[in-house]
Amino acid sequence: MSAHSGPPTVDADGVLADLAELAELTGGPGGARRVCWTAEWVAARDLLRGRLASIGVEDVEIDEAGNLWARLPGEDGSAPALALGSHLDSVPAGGPLDGALGVMAGLGVLRAWAREGHGRPPRDLVLIDFADEEGSRFGRSLFGSSAVAGTLDPAELAGLTDAAGETIAEVLDRCGVDLERAPRAHRRIGSIGSYLELHIEQGPVLDAAGESCSAVSGCAGVERFRLELEGQASHAGTTPMDHRRDAGLAAAEIALAVEGVARAHGGVGTTGSLALEPGVVTAVAGRAELAVDLRHPDSGELGAMLGDVRDAAGRIAAERDCGLAEHPIWSIEPIPFDPALVRAAEAAASRAGGRASAIASGALHDAAEMARRVPVAMVFAASVGGISHAREEDSRDDDLRAAIAAYGALAGAVLTEPPGTD
Amino acid sequence: MSAHSGPPTVDADGVLADLAELAELTGGPGGARRVCWTAEWVAARDLLRGRLASIGVEDVEIDEAGNLWARLPGEDGSAPALALGSHLDSVPAGGPLDGALGVMAGLGVLRAWAREGHGRPPRDLVLIDFADEEGSRFGRSLFGSSAVAGTLDPAELAGLTDAAGETIAEVLDRCGVDLERAPRAHRRIGSIGSYLELHIEQGPVLDAAGESCSAVSGCAGVERFRLELEGQASHAGTTPMDHRRDAGLAAAEIALAVEGVARAHGGVGTTGSLALEPGVVTAVAGRAELAVDLRHPDSGELGAMLGDVRDAAGRIAAERDCGLAEHPIWSIEPIPFDPALVRAAEAAASRAGGRASAIASGALHDAAEMARRVPVAMVFAASVGGISHAREEDSRDDDLRAAIAAYGALAGAVLTEPPGTD
Repeated sequence: MSAHSGPPTVDADGVLADLAELAELTGGPGGARRVCWTAEWVAARDLLRGRLASIGVEDVEIDEAGNLWARLPGEDGSAPALALGSHLDSVPAGGPLDGALGVMAGLGVLRAWAREGHGRPPRDLVLIDFADEEGSRFGRSLFGSSAVAGTLDPAELAGLTDAAGETIAEVLDRCGVDLERAPRAHRRIGSIGSYLELHIEQGPVLDAAGESCSAVSGCAGVERFRLELEGQASHAGTTPMDHRRDAGLAAAEIALAVEGVARAHGGVGTTGSLALEPGVVTAVAGRAELAVDLRHPDSGELGAMLGDVRDAAGRIAAERDCGLAEHPIWSIEPIPFDPALVRAAEAAASRAGGRASAIASGALHDAAEMARRVPVAMVFAASVGGISHAREEDSRDDDLRAAIAAYGALAGAVLTEPPGTD
Repeated sequence: MSAHSGPPTVDADGVLADLAELAELTGGPGGARRVCWTAEWVAARDLLRGRLASIGVEDVEIDEAGNLWARLPGEDGSAPALALGSHLDSVPAGGPLDGALGVMAGLGVLRAWAREGHGRPPRDLVLIDFADEEGSRFGRSLFGSSAVAGTLDPAELAGLTDAAGETIAEVLDRCGVDLERAPRAHRRIGSIGSYLELHIEQGPVLDAAGESCSAVSGCAGVERFRLELEGQASHAGTTPMDHRRDAGLAAAEIALAVEGVARAHGGVGTTGSLALEPGVVTAVAGRAELAVDLRHPDSGELGAMLGDVRDAAGRIAAERDCGLAEHPIWSIEPIPFDPALVRAAEAAASRAGGRASAIASGALHDAAEMARRVPVAMVFAASVGGISHAREEDSRDDDLRAAIAAYGALAGAVLTEPPGTD
């Protein structure tokens, strides 16, 4: 048989079995325990290596950033490879699917193409297990994928320590990774033609609509900053309402304004942290600090949201005679995925019984870093109740089967009929 | 000379000199250091004892609750005494005037009546330095005055410990006070006919109006409680606005509703404490807790404020699909002072150049406990900027002189022409 017999079907039940074994090995009542650079993360990788060996994939390497690359050779070894990827690492006490679904589904695609009797893929098929997507230990997300994308700067990470006070360089060194040399992982990007990732949605959109899976149009941009309000602490009993400069009420109004701005622009806006000083029941708050997170898949809308929140905060602080200072935390532009690949992902999701149109991702994924360099698309599987980063994280088996089928079909379509050429 | 020559004038500059010496002894750049049951509080009392001895007041006793009673005998020793009082104890890093002004002004009244050549007061004149008005160390305010008023229950205090883990019983014992026997101080109330107290306002009303002093109509009632809101923690990036159950925004709306209710009823309402969980910038708040403090001098209005805040909290929690639980912290009815004594205090303040009408006290004072048992009135001196419980606490000397003059005249009027008989 040759590749012209059409792409092989991925064995979704095999993927679910691999996920179940992984959960058995590194999960339990307390949730997933695969924080990057720990013994259990290494154990999860050993499980993956065993599976790769069992399907005859012998070309398995760890790059300078700790990413695992497994290569199933194609008919044309000189053509740019199709890369499939995600991450085995998890947050502490996380769920069984965040990251692991994408790695095990990618393994499932390799297994389908490696099956005896089926022809080799037209081009190399590469599975990447990225290191430290979550950044749970040092607060730096997308470590491995940013190294591959060429956006990792070791100098920015050198000062990071974990809760036990160990530096990131010390911890990585024990895992055989030299922080200084990690950016060299970027040299591998030249061999990649396009990148596909399957992930759980981690939000409630698909579940609420009763949809099993969908394509993803891109990752939303983020504007994250801290606001400090300076009013006047005073006695709760003796300060008339007209004499107050209540920094806490200014913060409360700003938090509600963030919500209104997000609704008005069709994005999301969150005030997840809000603290008052002195913070006692008998005193008007003299200081307040809140952290704001704004996200939108469209760069113009995100900028407008930021402007509207700044305007509202300035007006509210002035009305309450409070000082206002803004401190940046983090900011990233929206990252749209490749239009032709997204169309192909929409077609695959639709044929698998999922949603016909793509949805935007509010969270970041390794795909966001890869999209800086190569054409990218993603498929989302519905998350029950939208819950993730928690041991309650779950997806229905039928939804996972549909998402795996869509992902496998998308990979097959890309391998046999590269989009972007139409 | 006899009492018919009219009441003597209090030497206001002498009172200011006593306050300055007290500040020298127990204050400094860090603020007042007279927390009750400490060596510096004892030193402040020793200063007072020395002053009492120097003016010939020999009848000085400490009661079972640690209150100091100094008696200047009157012409009719069997008539109910006029008591003047306040407290020498302060909050940590407090100001020079909170409490100390009333004690030193009371001493000034005794000094005026004890002056050689002046007749004895018509009735006994008693100065009380109450113990632990502030409750800074164990969280229980009005310790000494509640014992005298008969509202102190040692069983309610037995479990209290200070920051170092010492029990209140252990600490009081070192100062010669047996917690179990403290309620016996109540027996002294029978000898008191009425009670007057001079205190700084600790709020901005007089200062903002350019008024030096005023009578006080009574102490506002307080409703203090904690509200817990239970929503759903979720991912700040992946949870659309319409799928959120944001407990933090519910809390923000309630805090603003508290402000609106206070304004509508002419009281004060404060949300001084507000905390979110998980309290991180990347998560919608699943839990929020806020503490609310409502005050009004009118019992009916205070009840209406409480009802309105409960209604608003219930409506807001329901709109945001959050659970709501209320936990009481503390509650006290408004305590109006004696109408005839308040009228006399208004006349005295007005004649001293102060405000003609009484204002309500938003803070509690020893007078609030005494008012449960005997006719009470208070005089307030203006606080610069309304600041108190801070080392910046201050009052202009001219305002203090006016307030001391009003207080002395009021005491004289009560002694020579008891109000309540008109």
